[in-house]
Amino acid sequence: MTDFWSGSPALEARLERVVAMIEATIDDRGFPLREATMAAAEATGKLLRPALLIIGSSFGRAAEPCRIDRLAAAIELLHVATLVHDDIIDDAPKRRGRSSLHASIGVKEAVLAGDWLFSRCFLLSSECAEPENARSLARLIAAVCSSEISQDLAKYRFSPSVRFYLRTIAGKTAALFSLALYAGASEAKAGSRTEQTLRRAGYDIGMAFQIIDDILDFESLEDVVQKPVGKDIAEGLCTLPLIYALKADGPGMEAILARVRKDDAASTARAAVEATSRAIELGGTVKARNDARRFTSRAITEIGRLPQSSSRDTLGFLAERLLQRAY
Amino acid sequence: MTDFWSGSPALEARLERVVAMIEATIDDRGFPLREATMAAAEATGKLLRPALLIIGSSFGRAAEPCRIDRLAAAIELLHVATLVHDDIIDDAPKRRGRSSLHASIGVKEAVLAGDWLFSRCFLLSSECAEPENARSLARLIAAVCSSEISQDLAKYRFSPSVRFYLRTIAGKTAALFSLALYAGASEAKAGSRTEQTLRRAGYDIGMAFQIIDDILDFESLEDVVQKPVGKDIAEGLCTLPLIYALKADGPGMEAILARVRKDDAASTARAAVEATSRAIELGGTVKARNDARRFTSRAITEIGRLPQSSSRDTLGFLAERLLQRAY
Repeated sequence: MTDFWSGSPALEARLERVVAMIEATIDDRGFPLREATMAAAEATGKLLRPALLIIGSSFGRAAEPCRIDRLAAAIELLHVATLVHDDIIDDAPKRRGRSSLHASIGVKEAVLAGDWLFSRCFLLSSECAEPENARSLARLIAAVCSSEISQDLAKYRFSPSVRFYLRTIAGKTAALFSLALYAGASEAKAGSRTEQTLRRAGYDIGMAFQIIDDILDFESLEDVVQKPVGKDIAEGLCTLPLIYALKADGPGMEAILARVRKDDAASTARAAVEATSRAIELGGTVKARNDARRFTSRAITEIGRLPQSSSRDTLGFLAERLLQRAY
Repeated sequence: MTDFWSGSPALEARLERVVAMIEATIDDRGFPLREATMAAAEATGKLLRPALLIIGSSFGRAAEPCRIDRLAAAIELLHVATLVHDDIIDDAPKRRGRSSLHASIGVKEAVLAGDWLFSRCFLLSSECAEPENARSLARLIAAVCSSEISQDLAKYRFSPSVRFYLRTIAGKTAALFSLALYAGASEAKAGSRTEQTLRRAGYDIGMAFQIIDDILDFESLEDVVQKPVGKDIAEGLCTLPLIYALKADGPGMEAILARVRKDDAASTARAAVEATSRAIELGGTVKARNDARRFTSRAITEIGRLPQSSSRDTLGFLAERLLQRAY
């Protein structure tokens, strides 16, 4: 586990239990790929989604920690499953500096390992969640897949639609953040008003998180984030900073992007780096960061409506911190 | 729908409703691949698994047809999802004479379409099944994935282990047949004794079904089954007829199989055809068919223990028919 949560020792201790549950789930003797999959699960980072679920649950009174931790493990398994399949889809050789699962065990096995993780996620959630929350999780996965498909089908078109972009990241990222906070609160019977406030706050935090993630693809240094700069553009993705750059100088940007081609890696890599710096010059990342800040402000407003508690502070602090992160 | 069920008009009518439910599920405006996925769902054939579920439910008194039909749709969606991912894994260009989904829409989209189908299956089952049956379905998918992975990892080794073969087909095929019959009966509260009998019968029918399926890969003509003869061997799979041939003439068969190599399609195709006819000469298919017959006999014995009814007759007839099928 990273030390991202070291400022919240109670939450950190809970997340350690969640990690132990995830490991116990994957360490299934009947599952032939347990070692490689375990490594993939370890490489996923900050455990944001299970943390949100646990934070959400702390707004209720009826929280049974063990059941909540199991559901938190389920939601992280879901995230790992989507990452495993995403890496296949993006043909990403690495994930956080380690080989991605399909790079280490092959595409076929990684498809099946992802399916196995999905089924384990569903099993855990059907064992420990209220039926309505288990159903929401299933519905959510369908929505995540639809968003990923829409995004994939739009690749290499570089169409500057803010609306399409926001709808896509809502489906692929914000919906899961939103569900995590909401489901935690709902399982702990926090009451409809608090649950709905957390649902909205989760959505806004997720939107800001994904926008920042997309900005970092423009700004970050390869040796820090361990992935090439301009990777999204090279993959044909049109994220928010690029959309604003296209709006600022359509013909100029399009001339560069015309050299991003699926079938020419060298031309694509050069064009992606050029498009990246030009988009920054055109103010694309600044405008995008303003949008992220707006979503974070909305989240902070929602969080202000919650009953006062240390969890409320933790959540507000988290929202700010995710906006400020540099990688 | 095929005319496979034309002898059982009541069942056929139910299955038509199941097909309509599957179509209504896939025809989701938020799902960008609905047309291609609909075509994939139509190409899956006899609707055996939903039929087993409906037959199982008819042994109980509490069957609510609409709920059973929804669960039957869920179990078929699960089957379609596994076929979509299987075709990616086997790199199969065709499925029942049509383009396989990944061949028509690309691997990436097909991975996501399969995930979408899985999530829809879970959603339907969590909406209409008893929680214990919904959990069984999730557990089953994990087991199916594990079996597929074991099978995939063993490819090109041609190790003649009947035990490994039986364990693999139990996980990837028989378990779903078994669950379908059992879950139908359990949802309709057929009583523990009948439910357990159906569980065993489903397992035996499934084992016989898969053995026959594997035999047909040796015997069938390309223009009838619409896939190349010896396809399993060419893919490095060691199914029961080949296992018996290896036991009858290890050195001879191994000499042929040494020419089956992932990286040489022409050599592999020739060797697969040669291995196929040699395995038949060595009695591999005859011995395998004897095993299938034994599983069918066991199924018939179990079916004989069920309370007398037209459903019992349908099930017995189905078990025999699946054993006799020529393609």
